[in-house]
Amino acid sequence: MSLKSLVLQECERAKEAAQKLLLLSPEDKQFVLFELAQDIEANAGKILAANRNDAALSKGRISPEMLKRLQVDKKKVHAMAGMVRSVAGLEDPAGKIISTTELDKGLLLKKISVPLGVVCCIFESRPEAVVQISALAIKSGNAVLLKGGSEALHTNRILTEIIRNSIKDNKGMPEDAVQLLETREAIREVLKMDEFIDLVIPRGSSQLVRFVRENTRIPVMGHAEGVCTVYIDKDADLAKAVSIAYDAKCQYPAVCNAAENLIVHRGIADKFIPAIARKYLESSVELRGDEETLKILRDAGIDAPGKIKKASEKDWATEYSDLIISIKVVSDVQEAVAFINRHGSGHTDAIVTENQSHAKKFLTMVDSSSVMWNASTRFADGYRYGLGAEVGISTGKIHARGPVGVEGLVTHKWILEGKGRFGHIVAPYAEGKRKFTHRKVM
Amino acid sequence: MSLKSLVLQECERAKEAAQKLLLLSPEDKQFVLFELAQDIEANAGKILAANRNDAALSKGRISPEMLKRLQVDKKKVHAMAGMVRSVAGLEDPAGKIISTTELDKGLLLKKISVPLGVVCCIFESRPEAVVQISALAIKSGNAVLLKGGSEALHTNRILTEIIRNSIKDNKGMPEDAVQLLETREAIREVLKMDEFIDLVIPRGSSQLVRFVRENTRIPVMGHAEGVCTVYIDKDADLAKAVSIAYDAKCQYPAVCNAAENLIVHRGIADKFIPAIARKYLESSVELRGDEETLKILRDAGIDAPGKIKKASEKDWATEYSDLIISIKVVSDVQEAVAFINRHGSGHTDAIVTENQSHAKKFLTMVDSSSVMWNASTRFADGYRYGLGAEVGISTGKIHARGPVGVEGLVTHKWILEGKGRFGHIVAPYAEGKRKFTHRKVM
Repeated sequence: MSLKSLVLQECERAKEAAQKLLLLSPEDKQFVLFELAQDIEANAGKILAANRNDAALSKGRISPEMLKRLQVDKKKVHAMAGMVRSVAGLEDPAGKIISTTELDKGLLLKKISVPLGVVCCIFESRPEAVVQISALAIKSGNAVLLKGGSEALHTNRILTEIIRNSIKDNKGMPEDAVQLLETREAIREVLKMDEFIDLVIPRGSSQLVRFVRENTRIPVMGHAEGVCTVYIDKDADLAKAVSIAYDAKCQYPAVCNAAENLIVHRGIADKFIPAIARKYLESSVELRGDEETLKILRDAGIDAPGKIKKASEKDWATEYSDLIISIKVVSDVQEAVAFINRHGSGHTDAIVTENQSHAKKFLTMVDSSSVMWNASTRFADGYRYGLGAEVGISTGKIHARGPVGVEGLVTHKWILEGKGRFGHIVAPYAEGKRKFTHRKVM
Repeated sequence: MSLKSLVLQECERAKEAAQKLLLLSPEDKQFVLFELAQDIEANAGKILAANRNDAALSKGRISPEMLKRLQVDKKKVHAMAGMVRSVAGLEDPAGKIISTTELDKGLLLKKISVPLGVVCCIFESRPEAVVQISALAIKSGNAVLLKGGSEALHTNRILTEIIRNSIKDNKGMPEDAVQLLETREAIREVLKMDEFIDLVIPRGSSQLVRFVRENTRIPVMGHAEGVCTVYIDKDADLAKAVSIAYDAKCQYPAVCNAAENLIVHRGIADKFIPAIARKYLESSVELRGDEETLKILRDAGIDAPGKIKKASEKDWATEYSDLIISIKVVSDVQEAVAFINRHGSGHTDAIVTENQSHAKKFLTMVDSSSVMWNASTRFADGYRYGLGAEVGISTGKIHARGPVGVEGLVTHKWILEGKGRFGHIVAPYAEGKRKFTHRKVM
């Protein structure tokens, strides 16, 4: 069979599974997930063996960090089971009544949340994504097509097998609710299936996200880049400013919500820049400053060979994901806002100030999914936001924005129920013989 | 200046205007809209003159129906002003607090609704769309780029001029909140501006919607087709069935929520099909039936030369927008659901039955934006649903689904405010020294 027809078959099976999933109650889905958690723990041996195989095949061929992400031990298996239990315990995002309106006597309109249908997730390295995404999909009533990294193939395969065997026919759950695509070439084919797939979630490098966006007409939820900025206002508390700017860059520089730019009001630059620069340099952070920043550093007698450079225009829009930060002096909040809206990626940006009106202006005018006042950009995260589980972080404005929990996997549907004796038709309203009541019931 | 740089400039101005719009209060926007309504009425003479010009230039070059849609009289001008006042009176969709969570003492996370930013609307014929879309954009705090049909150019131009003059500097409103693109070629250019435009709304023929979808990476809100089906269940009340099937097809056949397919349970087909066929034929509806339907018609002695035909496979997925209906006999609810999910366009579908469990199955399993029980598909409409004003009807599942009111023009944003004495950083949570409270405040 050609790859195309294989992928088509998988999509058709997913669509069929999505239909069957609609018949499961919230309790059914919860029950299935708790059993799945048990089955994952019961099959720890198989998972570890498959993972040892992957690790052996990958050794020397991938970076040590990638290898670390790939490797699964007993503790990680228990963590996977724990994750499934925690997803099981979340509030069911589907089947919620969003609003109820009585259009006329006996004619009731309900807007309710429903599963999207079929979701495709393309991810890299970490095999626990198989378990997490499957659990989130089951919880929200979606069928899922998974495509993981080839280096984790055996682990992903055994995890998918355990999940499919566990859910199969349990409470009417179709095993095809979870399917694994195995070849890299399948990605191109699956991205063409806009007739079957309702949402693609790429989780991985910005290259992966960009590739997906450019090669599909299916809606994509993800973020290609996290170019986050911390703005230190003239009226900032100096201690807060140093603490937040340090945390935003150094607490975990490899992630998307770490700061890449630091912009500083001219009125506080002389005091703040030397203070944060000393702290950054102690942690081996490379500083890339504009002329004014460099002059302030020189005047303060701060020198660190190879660690202080002049920033180029390109730096302001670069995601380093590393111990590097760009620093620029600005004249006021307005310039700060304009800088961020121009160079940032709409992910997360912070202001440090004690001035409420400056803060309000910043929070209102910065066009990003998360905006922070006297708090580190690093807080922008589904777990920290209390969403229970993170499906992804979206820098798009449509459907979902910022950290997205399981509610990102549902849409809504309008249900109109006519209880009248004669069947409800539009003609009498169009002819002015009847009037709508439009009474909000809920 | 090249067309490309012209469109780019307009996009840049729109983006700037969108920023300024963020500073207006709900009361400001309402005030501006009430004044706009007055200005439209005060300029009725200019509008009618420009429209006479358009009508004269178009005469003989467009169909009589198009000409009718194009033409504006005094009554229509007052209706436009009335529409602006009614949009002014809607609840402001932006600035609503969707949720508030205390992440920890003094660290408050708010999810609030905010304008999308820049919206582009491409529409055909009816010049009142200029006024309606502009009012909806202003109400929701968005800048809008309008592109109307060339046959209405002078009317669209004078309406845009009146709006821009009216809003200019009123409560700080930027005139560039509303801009008109004048040439057909501008469409291709504007569709490339995904850096500037957050949403495109095509309003017009299914060809237009399809063209827009295929030529842009900007999210599109609209529906290419309305292939709606009415299913008459075995347990249907015959009188309701006839009434609803008739209304769904005949009340206004040219619109997207009119029915194109009628599918009938075998157990009621002998009674129902002859009854509805007689009623349809009285209204000159052409019937395209499957073999079984044709046999039932023959057995009932119903004949109407040229008005009864055999349906082809293609008929089940065709939007006639005309007095034609396809009829098919099915075995049960399950087959009805499968038929609709396969051939329908996900717009609106109805079941007529007195059997609650059949209804529930249908409403749950049919994957369409609106599903009706004992009610006509023609109810699927923003006005009838009580949304106040209709931005469009979306058959997509992402962001908005079904009839979309002004809430379709907003997204949300996360605002994290730290009130603690030391500036809120992630490090102590990551190190296990502090724990999140995740207390729902609202």
